[in-house]
Amino acid sequence: MKLATYLPAGRREPRIGIYLEHAGGAYLIDAVRAYAQVLSQIDREPGAAATATALITHDMKSLLAGGATAMAACQRAHDQTRRWLGRGPGSVQELLECGLLHGRSSVTLLAPIPRPGKVVAIGANYRAHIDEGRDTGAITELPSYPPAFLKMSTAVVGCDQPIVYPGFGQELDYEVELSMVVGRNCRDVAAEDWLDCVAGFTIVNDLSMRDVILAEKASGIVFAGKNFESACPMGPFLVTRDEIADPGNLRIGLRVNGQVRQDDSTRSMLFSCGQIFAYWSRLGLECGDVITTGTPGGGAGFHRKFPERLLQVGDVVEAEIEGLGTLRNQVVKADAYPRF
Amino acid sequence: MKLATYLPAGRREPRIGIYLEHAGGAYLIDAVRAYAQVLSQIDREPGAAATATALITHDMKSLLAGGATAMAACQRAHDQTRRWLGRGPGSVQELLECGLLHGRSSVTLLAPIPRPGKVVAIGANYRAHIDEGRDTGAITELPSYPPAFLKMSTAVVGCDQPIVYPGFGQELDYEVELSMVVGRNCRDVAAEDWLDCVAGFTIVNDLSMRDVILAEKASGIVFAGKNFESACPMGPFLVTRDEIADPGNLRIGLRVNGQVRQDDSTRSMLFSCGQIFAYWSRLGLECGDVITTGTPGGGAGFHRKFPERLLQVGDVVEAEIEGLGTLRNQVVKADAYPRF
Repeated sequence: MKLATYLPAGRREPRIGIYLEHAGGAYLIDAVRAYAQVLSQIDREPGAAATATALITHDMKSLLAGGATAMAACQRAHDQTRRWLGRGPGSVQELLECGLLHGRSSVTLLAPIPRPGKVVAIGANYRAHIDEGRDTGAITELPSYPPAFLKMSTAVVGCDQPIVYPGFGQELDYEVELSMVVGRNCRDVAAEDWLDCVAGFTIVNDLSMRDVILAEKASGIVFAGKNFESACPMGPFLVTRDEIADPGNLRIGLRVNGQVRQDDSTRSMLFSCGQIFAYWSRLGLECGDVITTGTPGGGAGFHRKFPERLLQVGDVVEAEIEGLGTLRNQVVKADAYPRF
Repeated sequence: MKLATYLPAGRREPRIGIYLEHAGGAYLIDAVRAYAQVLSQIDREPGAAATATALITHDMKSLLAGGATAMAACQRAHDQTRRWLGRGPGSVQELLECGLLHGRSSVTLLAPIPRPGKVVAIGANYRAHIDEGRDTGAITELPSYPPAFLKMSTAVVGCDQPIVYPGFGQELDYEVELSMVVGRNCRDVAAEDWLDCVAGFTIVNDLSMRDVILAEKASGIVFAGKNFESACPMGPFLVTRDEIADPGNLRIGLRVNGQVRQDDSTRSMLFSCGQIFAYWSRLGLECGDVITTGTPGGGAGFHRKFPERLLQVGDVVEAEIEGLGTLRNQVVKADAYPRF
């Protein structure tokens, strides 16, 4: 399943959605409503709406905390909606009208986990990216472990939400990263058990201000170069782990204004998803925490030979990973943001 | 006011409390219940309980988002409870019995903001701490700005909650820090406006694994040395800004097993609260975000001359700041924690 957190048109309360394609159209199933229909129409259960809301909830972290039972409810809602859609040409319209289905383009996607407990970002995990860093002294040696830092949860934005150009620094760069979403509270997980603890995968664009990073490296602590408003686009979906046969063999890339900038495979990762997950599970992980896995080569900033690649206001950035969809965001001016 | 997030005895849903001392006893007022009583008994309002719950809520971030109106409701609940207590010797018992009041020792305190959007921690802001760092090469020069890093929100624990000794590293150290709680969403705040954006103050014990920090410094990114489970004790209260005449002139200290280890004044800070707040408001700040202000000298790890000062399992750490109370935590073995 491709799970989403979304706002129905004109609404401000997030809901859980399940992405679905049908007859050339793209839709989101309202997971709670669909499961309530399953319970009332198929199972003839009383109190279907309350049960569906309690199990699936309107919050992805709570859904994940519901474990296999909650996920099975989503799967059943998805499968039954497909069956209803198969009943005939009028069924789409019927499901749209009762709010069980939404056209993909009519809703606002938030990040699948709009406010993760933490975002652990891996700093250097593709040789090409490390080589680019080495050119400028930003990264000096191959790491013996997957080095990481935190991205602010308050900087997480969803697909199609704007990237606000920071009020400091001048070298805004992109980094597409395959990311794991923690599916259960855990700690000190053995490498062979990691997949039991992962709910699924998503895309993170680990935005970076290269000039700020280099200045902060000199002072000893990198922080603002990786953390500013909307520095962490994430999405569009949480794709459940059953859909990804091998996270270590996915095409991964990024385009700016349609032009390919990054294009690689997760086969190029130095540390595998399992190694990264096991290593950083030492911090204690919780449902909905997100762990990235580093970015391939092709970033603009470390080159310095290609200053024209740095992101500018107006640019459209599309981060894409095989099976996970496309995370699209446009860079906007900070001025639009209300001061306090 | 001293605001708290607490669990009543035997309950698992947090509530907002207001600390109160009366006739030698320490209590927490249940803010929602007390304000509901004010509305029904004094104002004769219908639907008092629903109004009180909507305004004060059970979540500190939501309370702060309610702004001056919500804070005034808490103040009125506090003042009226004091008046009720003044009615005579039976009044404490009466308020305890109806659940409007709890004995301080009967409740579990959580951190005032149990899961902040972000915790921005200042790395070096007292000359004595910097000098200690310089001895070992961990800090090499006086900073030209207040250098910062993130503490994981998932590592925040409250007063009297255990500090779990990490499963990695061997040099666990303490750092008492005066901390600001953001009271409104803001960005790029001018230094003279900072106090308008602060709800109040609390204490953070910025726990650190010194050996891990030094190893990570060599690889370029400090992370796990500042981030592990329960690495961020916070509390006991959110003390509203009206109670702190001058945050730049407060006694600040820390004891381990009753022995004084840190003892200084916030007068020794290199960057003031206002300077720190204005500088880091560039990240975009939200209600309930927490910003620390650095720690005085007296930490164990950077000395190396005093390895016996490093925290060990069983140690009781008390971080204390004038007007903010005492943040007390005991170090426990990790083994007690359930693996996945």
